[in-house]
Amino acid sequence: MIAVAITLLVLNIVVPPADKTAHGAHLGHALGALWPQYAAYVVSFLTIGIIWINHHVMIGRLAEADHSILMLNLLLLLTIAVIPFGTSLFAEYLREGHGAKLAAAIYGAIFLAMASAFASLNSQILLRRPQLLRVKLSARQRRMILYRSVSGLFPYIVATGLAAVSPYVTLAIMAALALFYALPIASSAGVSEV
Amino acid sequence: MIAVAITLLVLNIVVPPADKTAHGAHLGHALGALWPQYAAYVVSFLTIGIIWINHHVMIGRLAEADHSILMLNLLLLLTIAVIPFGTSLFAEYLREGHGAKLAAAIYGAIFLAMASAFASLNSQILLRRPQLLRVKLSARQRRMILYRSVSGLFPYIVATGLAAVSPYVTLAIMAALALFYALPIASSAGVSEV
Amino acid sequence: MIAVAITLLVLNIVVPPADKTAHGAHLGHALGALWPQYAAYVVSFLTIGIIWINHHVMIGRLAEADHSILMLNLLLLLTIAVIPFGTSLFAEYLREGHGAKLAAAIYGAIFLAMASAFASLNSQILLRRPQLLRVKLSARQRRMILYRSVSGLFPYIVATGLAAVSPYVTLAIMAALALFYALPIASSAGVSEV
Amino acid sequence: MIAVAITLLVLNIVVPPADKTAHGAHLGHALGALWPQYAAYVVSFLTIGIIWINHHVMIGRLAEADHSILMLNLLLLLTIAVIPFGTSLFAEYLREGHGAKLAAAIYGAIFLAMASAFASLNSQILLRRPQLLRVKLSARQRRMILYRSVSGLFPYIVATGLAAVSPYVTLAIMAALALFYALPIASSAGVSEV
Repeated sequence: MIAVAITLLVLNIVVPPADKTAHGAHLGHALGALWPQYAAYVVSFLTIGIIWINHHVMIGRLAEADHSILMLNLLLLLTIAVIPFGTSLFAEYLREGHGAKLAAAIYGAIFLAMASAFASLNSQILLRRPQLLRVKLSARQRRMILYRSVSGLFPYIVATGLAAVSPYVTLAIMAALALFYALPIASSAGVSEV
Repeated sequence: MIAVAITLLVLNIVVPPADKTAHGAHLGHALGALWPQYAAYVVSFLTIGIIWINHHVMIGRLAEADHSILMLNLLLLLTIAVIPFGTSLFAEYLREGHGAKLAAAIYGAIFLAMASAFASLNSQILLRRPQLLRVKLSARQRRMILYRSVSGLFPYIVATGLAAVSPYVTLAIMAALALFYALPIASSAGVSEV
Repeated sequence: MIAVAITLLVLNIVVPPADKTAHGAHLGHALGALWPQYAAYVVSFLTIGIIWINHHVMIGRLAEADHSILMLNLLLLLTIAVIPFGTSLFAEYLREGHGAKLAAAIYGAIFLAMASAFASLNSQILLRRPQLLRVKLSARQRRMILYRSVSGLFPYIVATGLAAVSPYVTLAIMAALALFYALPIASSAGVSEV
Repeated sequence: MIAVAITLLVLNIVVPPADKTAHGAHLGHALGALWPQYAAYVVSFLTIGIIWINHHVMIGRLAEADHSILMLNLLLLLTIAVIPFGTSLFAEYLREGHGAKLAAAIYGAIFLAMASAFASLNSQILLRRPQLLRVKLSARQRRMILYRSVSGLFPYIVATGLAAVSPYVTLAIMAALALFYALPIASSAGVSEV
C-alpha cells in the first residue's frame, strides 16, 4: 500500500495545458513556476520512502500480529495515504500569501501524525507485545529502538510549529530531514529505525 | 488489489484551487467546508482496512481455491473497487438537500453489497468447500465464523435503510461500526472474521 | 500490475458535480444516465479479473522465464493496461450517435489484442519453451490448453466486427462472455485457461 | 511500485469529451490527433517494463541490502515514478512549436536520470558491496554487467541532446531503444542487465 501511495504522489504534478502556455507564456516559465510542486514531491517521496523501509524492518521483526498491532498499523497506513493530499495542498499554496502558513502547518502535521502512528505501533510491539517478536531483543535494545522512533517526532513538531513563521522554514526542515536520513551518516544512527 | 483501492480513496479529497480561495474566502474555511470528504474518507478507509485484514484471514484458511471460490472472490473485489466511487458520491452530496439521502443510501448499499459478497464467499468456503481448508475446522467452528460474517450484514442494512431518515444517520452508523471493529473489544469478538 | 489496472477502472466512473445537478435535474436521473459507465465497468472488471486468474495459472506453470517469455508478457500487460482507457472511451460514446460504433470497435479490439497477446504467450510457453515448465505436460495436454486459448479469440473478433452493426451488440457479447466464464459451466471447460 | 507506475501511465491518455467532438469534429479525427499520446505511452510503457525486469534481476542478486543500496534504490524509484509526468508533458507538447523541444529534452532527461540511477545502484552493488551478493560473481563478470549498465546511458544522452534538433528525433531514438531491448537480439546481449 505504501508502494501505491508513493507512486500516486506524481499525479499531483500537473502538466501545464498546451493551449494556455502557447499564447504568450513559455513552457519553460510555466514549468519553472511549478517548482513548489517538485520540491514538495521530492520531500514527500523521500520521506515516504524512508518510512517504507523502516516499516518493512519494524514489521519484519514480528513472528505474528495481534488485533492491536493490526489496528495501529491500519492507522499508520491511513496517515501515509493522506500524504499525497497534504503534498498537493502544500505545493498549491506555498506561494499564496493568505493560505501558505496553514497549508504548511497541515503538511507538517500530517507527517507528524504519521511519525506518531509509527512510534505508537513500534511501542506497542516492543513494549507491550515483545512475545510476538521473531527474534528476542533485550529490554535495552527495545528501548534504544523506541527511543529513536520517539525522538524522530521532534523535527516534525518543529517543522509544523514554524509554519507560523514561514512555510519555507517548514519545507527546509522537512527537506533537511529527508536528506539526513538518506545520507550515510544516518546509517549508523539507525536509519531503518526512525 | 485491496491495497490499491484503499490508497485510491485519497484521490477523492480535492485540494481547493488556490486562485479561487485567494479572492475573498480563506483556505481555512475552504478546507473546513470539505469535512464531509474527510469524514467519508476515514470511514471508508477504516472499513476497507478491516475487510482487508479479514479477507487475508479468510483466504489464508484455504489450501487451494476452486472456480467457485475464485469467482466469488472476484465479485467481492468488484464491490470493494467501487467503494472509492461511493465515498466520493457520498461526500459530494452529503450537504446537498435534494440528493443527500440517495447518495447515503448508495454509499450504504455498496458496503452492504461488499459485506454480502464477503459472507457468500465465506459460506462457500466453510459450508460447501471445507475440504479445501488448510486446517480442518469442526462444523461448530465453521458455523461460528459464518454466523459472525452474516450477522455483520445487519448494521449495513440498517445504515442503508436509515438513509431515508437522514444521511448523517448513515454516516454515524458506518463510523460507529468502523470504530467498534477497530477497538480492542472487537478483538475477542473476532474482528478478523466479520 | 493487473491488480492495479483492475482497480483503476473505477476512476472512470465520475460523480456528477453537485452544483450542476442541484439546479433542476435530480441526482437519481444524473446517476441513471451514467448506466453505460456502470455496464462497461462491470464487463471490463470481470474480464480483467478472469484474465488475471488465467495469467496466474499460466505463469504458475513456469519454472523459469526466458527473454521471449518476459517480452511477450510485457506485451500482454500493455494490452491490459490500456483497458481502462478503452472502457472510458466506450462508456463516454455509447449513446453518442456519431462515435459510438468506432468506440465500440476500439473497445472490442483492445480486448481482442489482449486475448491475442495471451494466446501468443501461452503458445510460446507451451509449444516453443516446454522445457521451462515446472510440471511436464504431454503434447496433447499442451495442445488442449492452447486450443482453448486460441478459440477464446473468436468471441472478441465477433464483438469487434459487430460494432459496425451496433455498439450494444458489442456490449452484449462482451457481457455474455464475462458471464459465461464466471458461471460454473465454464469451470469444467477450463475457465483458468481461456 | 514499478508495477503501479507502469499502470498509471494510462491515466495520461485522455478520452476526448463526447460533448465537444459531437459538434463538428468526428471521434476518429479526435482520436487520431492524440497519436503523440499513444506513441509516448508505448515507448514509456516498454521502457519501464524493461527496467522492471532488469531491476528484478539486479535486486535478485542480493542476499541482503545495506543503507547505501536502499537509498540508491529509492532514488531509482523516484526517477521511475516521475516518468508518467514526463510522458504526459512530452505528449502534450510534441506538436506545439514553442515548447516541443524543451518537453522532449525533459522526457529524455528523465529517462537518462533513471538509467543513471540504475547504473549507480548496480555499481554500488557490484563494485562496493560484492559481499552482499547471493551468488558470488568474478570481478570480470561484475565488470561486464556494469559495462552494459553504463553503456546503456549513451542512447539516452543522445536522445536528450538531439531534442534541440527535433522532438521527433528524441521519440524515434527512444522507440528504437525500447524495440531493440524487446527483440530477441538483445537477449544474448544481456537485456536483463541494461
